[in-house]
Amino acid sequence: MIKARQAIKIEEAFNKLLESKKDLGEIHIHVDNSLNYVVSRNIYAPLSIPSFRRSMYDGYAIRKEDDEGFPKSFKVVGELPCGEVFSGNLERNQAVRIMTGAKVPDDAGKVIMLEYTEPSKEQDEVVILRTHATDNINPIGSDFFTGDKILEKGDEMNAGTISLLRAFGIETVPVFRKPKVAVLSTGTELLSLGEPIQDGKIYDSNRPLLEQLVREHNGELIYSGQLPDQKDSIEKTLSSLAQEADIIVTTGGVSVGDFDFMAEVVEGHQLLFNKIQMRPGSPTSAAWAGDTLLMALSGNPGACFIGFHLFIKPYIRHLMQCQQVERRATAVLQTDYLKENAFDRILRAQHSFNENGQLCVTPVGSDQSSSLGNLHQTTCFVKIPGGEEGKRQGDYVDVWML
Amino acid sequence: MIKARQAIKIEEAFNKLLESKKDLGEIHIHVDNSLNYVVSRNIYAPLSIPSFRRSMYDGYAIRKEDDEGFPKSFKVVGELPCGEVFSGNLERNQAVRIMTGAKVPDDAGKVIMLEYTEPSKEQDEVVILRTHATDNINPIGSDFFTGDKILEKGDEMNAGTISLLRAFGIETVPVFRKPKVAVLSTGTELLSLGEPIQDGKIYDSNRPLLEQLVREHNGELIYSGQLPDQKDSIEKTLSSLAQEADIIVTTGGVSVGDFDFMAEVVEGHQLLFNKIQMRPGSPTSAAWAGDTLLMALSGNPGACFIGFHLFIKPYIRHLMQCQQVERRATAVLQTDYLKENAFDRILRAQHSFNENGQLCVTPVGSDQSSSLGNLHQTTCFVKIPGGEEGKRQGDYVDVWML
Repeated sequence: MIKARQAIKIEEAFNKLLESKKDLGEIHIHVDNSLNYVVSRNIYAPLSIPSFRRSMYDGYAIRKEDDEGFPKSFKVVGELPCGEVFSGNLERNQAVRIMTGAKVPDDAGKVIMLEYTEPSKEQDEVVILRTHATDNINPIGSDFFTGDKILEKGDEMNAGTISLLRAFGIETVPVFRKPKVAVLSTGTELLSLGEPIQDGKIYDSNRPLLEQLVREHNGELIYSGQLPDQKDSIEKTLSSLAQEADIIVTTGGVSVGDFDFMAEVVEGHQLLFNKIQMRPGSPTSAAWAGDTLLMALSGNPGACFIGFHLFIKPYIRHLMQCQQVERRATAVLQTDYLKENAFDRILRAQHSFNENGQLCVTPVGSDQSSSLGNLHQTTCFVKIPGGEEGKRQGDYVDVWML
Repeated sequence: MIKARQAIKIEEAFNKLLESKKDLGEIHIHVDNSLNYVVSRNIYAPLSIPSFRRSMYDGYAIRKEDDEGFPKSFKVVGELPCGEVFSGNLERNQAVRIMTGAKVPDDAGKVIMLEYTEPSKEQDEVVILRTHATDNINPIGSDFFTGDKILEKGDEMNAGTISLLRAFGIETVPVFRKPKVAVLSTGTELLSLGEPIQDGKIYDSNRPLLEQLVREHNGELIYSGQLPDQKDSIEKTLSSLAQEADIIVTTGGVSVGDFDFMAEVVEGHQLLFNKIQMRPGSPTSAAWAGDTLLMALSGNPGACFIGFHLFIKPYIRHLMQCQQVERRATAVLQTDYLKENAFDRILRAQHSFNENGQLCVTPVGSDQSSSLGNLHQTTCFVKIPGGEEGKRQGDYVDVWML
């Protein structure tokens, strides 16, 4: 049996994890494969965008000196599709037909939109009816100048950043590698997929839960296994996994039962905590095995789900040096929740916005630790502070957005 | 040149897309590979969960008749790890040591938690100090009874749903196949990755943008290509792609320029619209090529990004029969935006919550159609209604959450 446990606050447990200074190291990957990675250093523009004076409209490019006395006729001396360059010179009252996005001839100072013109009776001429207050030219570097910072260390790669780097012709991007995560469920009661149901046993649903959560939240799943409640085999497997993994997440065996070996195993390492002032999931435990985080979550589905989102997901983001590791907010509770509890109670909930744009949260399904019927409906967690009588409909509550 | 265009409202364009009744058809896939698919029919529980009376605590299971007169000694006649079954009978003042999650013996009517007991001086005995008001047993089916609906047609597969199906031992799940999407950028000015920069030309950033957006939002990318502004080759490619794709998204060539062939190509099919009352992206056009949606987005990065999120993403979700195809909300604008416009103006913005939980939105970067520096920072779009003077700081605005 393990020693009496001292329960710490959720935020204290969270902060202990963030003390880790583990460096994942930098890799260079092709921009097209960088979705959801985090940029490992500032990236600067290798060229200006636009790299030429770019026409904002379809229309006619004319000289600044000719921009007066409309309506009048212009001689059309060239036609400029995008991607082509006008090689001649513009003389008095000459115009070049130009498309949106094309390079404005060097002599031209203004683009008149097509809608302000009409065909002339003369061939090779156009009548410009009126002018604009603006020149309708994006100057060189109006988006970015060469050397401008375009991405910052800690930026997450998404469709927008990938597109941005591609606009500069950048092929590879320096990113932090993704944390390697091993998932392990313990419990002699666990049936694998494909086995027939047996009395007193259950299908293992926590391991697939954690596998998918790791994938969804940008861990690299390097191992997923299931072990019976035998201390020796658990320890052996953990030691071996700690050589490679940045994070080992286990589920089950953290409670006070005679077969809850995970609690003992965690104590054999550099213990961070082995009890948190929260329900569900109070026996959630963590330790360092070298620089590998060993996180032992409860075997109850609700507690396992909450433990992942409150601790593992932010820790993954911390290791990847994301600018924001969790999203907290204040919201309006839509129903009474009046159970008293010494510990903070974490409710699975759904969020919506009312007509004033206020974030509203409604608990979904059961608050029981063992309940697995509401995980998939959960979009946020509501915190009911411990030591109070609960919260009423209309009260402000702290929430974690998932 | 094409006919004069009639501009319709954003919402009208959106609704025209949703009129499609195209049936993607159902496939059966392994649960573990079902992340982000949408369930194609209701799914019912093949067994009850729990399938046995499950202990909520580590402690001792006793008969209902013996639940009185504490403290008193009980003879411990068995020890029940999870997954094992007690095969004997419980007699008067006999108890079985039981773990959280284990099957409660049929004779037992209550579980006393370990903390309410102390060891006895007698071997094989335990002293139970006090009792609980509750029996601490999850009855059979307290999560789900056999035949209960566990997932609904239109539910999206996530870590929670995968875990839920695995808890029932379910191996495959019926889902709608993902829409097949082809992406095509047009423009003679476009450089491919790896080519040296050339005067008047630009690196193609819209095609990688659309590729990643399609992947992120659950389309199956079946083709991605780049074509010069030549009507014949564009038409030929589109006809061939329409045989296989559910959606063809093009970027570029929808404006009024002489080389904007996409506008003409779209008119050659069953036209849905070729102008929308919005900026950027007013020339956004759509047509049916058979039952394939042909959606021609502007070649400007901002317009292309907005067009995807306002039309393609909801259409993908509509085809997959998701319960919700877009997320609209009301929010509080954090800065003045006072440009007047005949059309609705869509601003790229970031959202946050204030201390009252109110959704607050702040435009990011330039509102110019051609600007590509803020796509990656955008978490929502703000609608500034056309025909008004704009919106002021503190005003309520309509937003699309991305």
